[in-house]
Amino acid sequence: MEGTFFVATHSQGTRLDPWFDSYAERAHGMRSSEIRALFAVASRPEVVSLAGGMPNLSSLPMDHIAEISARLLKDRGTRALQYGSGQGEVEMREAILDVMRYDSISVHPDDIVVTTGSQQALDLVTEVFIDPGDVIVAEAPSYVGALGVFRAYQAEVVHTPMDEDGLIPEELEATLTRLEAAGKRVKLLYTVPNYHNPAGVTLSLERRPQIIDICRRHLVLILEDNPYGLLGFDSDPIPALKSFAPDGVVYLGSFSKMFGPGYRIGWAAAPHAVREKLVLASESAILCPSQLGQLSIVEYLNTWDWYGQVKQYRGEYRTRCEAMMSALEEYLPMCSWTKPDGGFYTWVTLPDGLDAKAMLPRAVKNLVAYVSGTAFYDDGQGSDHIRLSFCYPPPDTIREGVRRLSQVVSAELEMVELFGTNTHPERDRHPDHSGVDTPSPDQV
Amino acid sequence: MEGTFFVATHSQGTRLDPWFDSYAERAHGMRSSEIRALFAVASRPEVVSLAGGMPNLSSLPMDHIAEISARLLKDRGTRALQYGSGQGEVEMREAILDVMRYDSISVHPDDIVVTTGSQQALDLVTEVFIDPGDVIVAEAPSYVGALGVFRAYQAEVVHTPMDEDGLIPEELEATLTRLEAAGKRVKLLYTVPNYHNPAGVTLSLERRPQIIDICRRHLVLILEDNPYGLLGFDSDPIPALKSFAPDGVVYLGSFSKMFGPGYRIGWAAAPHAVREKLVLASESAILCPSQLGQLSIVEYLNTWDWYGQVKQYRGEYRTRCEAMMSALEEYLPMCSWTKPDGGFYTWVTLPDGLDAKAMLPRAVKNLVAYVSGTAFYDDGQGSDHIRLSFCYPPPDTIREGVRRLSQVVSAELEMVELFGTNTHPERDRHPDHSGVDTPSPDQV
Repeated sequence: MEGTFFVATHSQGTRLDPWFDSYAERAHGMRSSEIRALFAVASRPEVVSLAGGMPNLSSLPMDHIAEISARLLKDRGTRALQYGSGQGEVEMREAILDVMRYDSISVHPDDIVVTTGSQQALDLVTEVFIDPGDVIVAEAPSYVGALGVFRAYQAEVVHTPMDEDGLIPEELEATLTRLEAAGKRVKLLYTVPNYHNPAGVTLSLERRPQIIDICRRHLVLILEDNPYGLLGFDSDPIPALKSFAPDGVVYLGSFSKMFGPGYRIGWAAAPHAVREKLVLASESAILCPSQLGQLSIVEYLNTWDWYGQVKQYRGEYRTRCEAMMSALEEYLPMCSWTKPDGGFYTWVTLPDGLDAKAMLPRAVKNLVAYVSGTAFYDDGQGSDHIRLSFCYPPPDTIREGVRRLSQVVSAELEMVELFGTNTHPERDRHPDHSGVDTPSPDQV
Repeated sequence: MEGTFFVATHSQGTRLDPWFDSYAERAHGMRSSEIRALFAVASRPEVVSLAGGMPNLSSLPMDHIAEISARLLKDRGTRALQYGSGQGEVEMREAILDVMRYDSISVHPDDIVVTTGSQQALDLVTEVFIDPGDVIVAEAPSYVGALGVFRAYQAEVVHTPMDEDGLIPEELEATLTRLEAAGKRVKLLYTVPNYHNPAGVTLSLERRPQIIDICRRHLVLILEDNPYGLLGFDSDPIPALKSFAPDGVVYLGSFSKMFGPGYRIGWAAAPHAVREKLVLASESAILCPSQLGQLSIVEYLNTWDWYGQVKQYRGEYRTRCEAMMSALEEYLPMCSWTKPDGGFYTWVTLPDGLDAKAMLPRAVKNLVAYVSGTAFYDDGQGSDHIRLSFCYPPPDTIREGVRRLSQVVSAELEMVELFGTNTHPERDRHPDHSGVDTPSPDQV
């Protein structure tokens, strides 16, 4: 009977997808995520990937982690392999408070929801707040994985500009005022305040209370996404937005960058009533987060100098960032870029006339990968930018990747000079040319 | 600044929840899940919980699992703790095919999506197919956790009857015909064909092609949820619905009952185009499933006689089920119940005049917990039933739990005799009295 479930009378379905007519409206907008694509490219050994955001885990104390995992399973296996609380285990939530103290956040363990990575927290907050057509204000550019979630819930994303000190308060105020005047329902401000993905900048301490004040006046909930906060190269974190207004901010945290992503454990710290909704939504989505993952991370935090490991990471990423900065100076003087104080990424501005999306296939052919700036906008901007990550490859490989990239940029510039600056379409900053057709790196 | 984010001008928000006006429409319907509540009750040591569905993990080879986990982290730690593929690792998907062969299913590894427990697969399928108001046909009764997901996506659930051989084909045909005539858009048939939760019955082999044929004619996709399929007390599984019509069925599988829930690894096996949508939806929701969880389970399957462990489980659950059956015969002759051939549950019919929801507080006061039948319907049915689980407590405890329950039932019957059969509201089978206010066991 295999393959013959459908008879020809299925009115509008296609032979390729007999269920085409059955999809929900939201599913028709689902398309290949650039995040998945990055993994595919990064895994080809001959390509230097400056595209992905995989943390470098080589300095983790694997022998110790192996030992505490074995002990956990031997001593408490029937608990570690069982179902647990939908909100997350109490000892996990208490340990998370210890981590958030570095962000100057002080809340109750009851305000924490443990999730399958902070990505799930992002998904849950969007599920709880967004009806189709609601507006989310986000930085320009913004995290590609957040834009995907917002799209899945049919939100309208409006970008607001940043400079080297992060979100610009006056611009945010103007954006919110304009949206209100247009009768839009703005539900959330989504922001990555520390070592921004993809821009590499950090919201200054001075601006934080200003952003809080603007959102308070406009009754907009802040969604503060902080996976990189502990990874400043030379400093402890500055106070989180959450620390200024616990009731006005849902804070998302993650163990993926300060420890490792493999257990898929992240969290949200939310105002009480919001937290309740998030727990219900999470139970519906996954019943409960991994018990083994939570108890393993609690053991790691309790038996290892985890903040010492964070400092180790900082040194490694600083070295890699320095390698990228000096390679950019040497090989790509025709470009400009941000100078991060932490995190994984720098945001490169291409010379006039170059198109990041159009150039990507030629870059991959020259064995180097990046992410086109268009991935980080919901409105068609970004073709004049690329995101380079310095987190995963060792310094020499980063240098080689930037060298390969410079060959591609030079060849593109030659083409532009030969055929004029209009070989590429005019940069388009209007929403009618959306970024939806961004080719993902593994499609090239 | 703590606690003062909101000024009094926030028009309709309450002091208790300043964000009340910001929630999405779907969030206003979110309410306490009975699943979470079950964990809370089950964790009180003095209560005999016949409510929860926690598997009994005491016979798992913990020393061996500890050893393979330690080796995995030592030898491949930087992979196990890293991000992975959104669809799931190839070796995990191949191992899943080996498991599904016991259900007579033969598909390609590319048709599998690995998820955070099969609950996430349930969530993803619903996300991909259901617009608000679409109809899902489900058994009467149906799995409480599925009803919660369907509600979250604002589906309309219509129940169709079962007997001791599972779904009744003629009734399903009539239900679908009636819904079509009413202009309803029926998207899915949701079914738990083996050792049904909560009913304890199994869809007979003879009926399976009939169900397939009916759904094919009505162009309804089948969502086959099969967590208990390997846990028949005395037999290998009968062929899954998926084995009859690979293109017409999304099959959900889980390691939670045949191994353990702690890694939160389940899967969907879906028609190709549907699988693509599920991967995109999953990447948006969680980026990727736990790498550590997947690789650990692959190691377990490859290095242990896992089917021998399944047979061990079968014996344990058979013994527990026998203890429950004999206790029911001895203590509750005024009730009737289903006689399961596998799985975790029996479905008990109360004597006339008793109300399962109203009786629950008195049961918990008498130190025994169950789940009211009302939890398993979306339309107000079920107050004449309770679900009893025999999976977790040892046989003597099960016996003691049933004894305590019989005291409560007897006392209730006395009340009914004293004050007439109308001390409880008439059993209501109409949708206007929905199960939404079902008190969860930890609220009593």
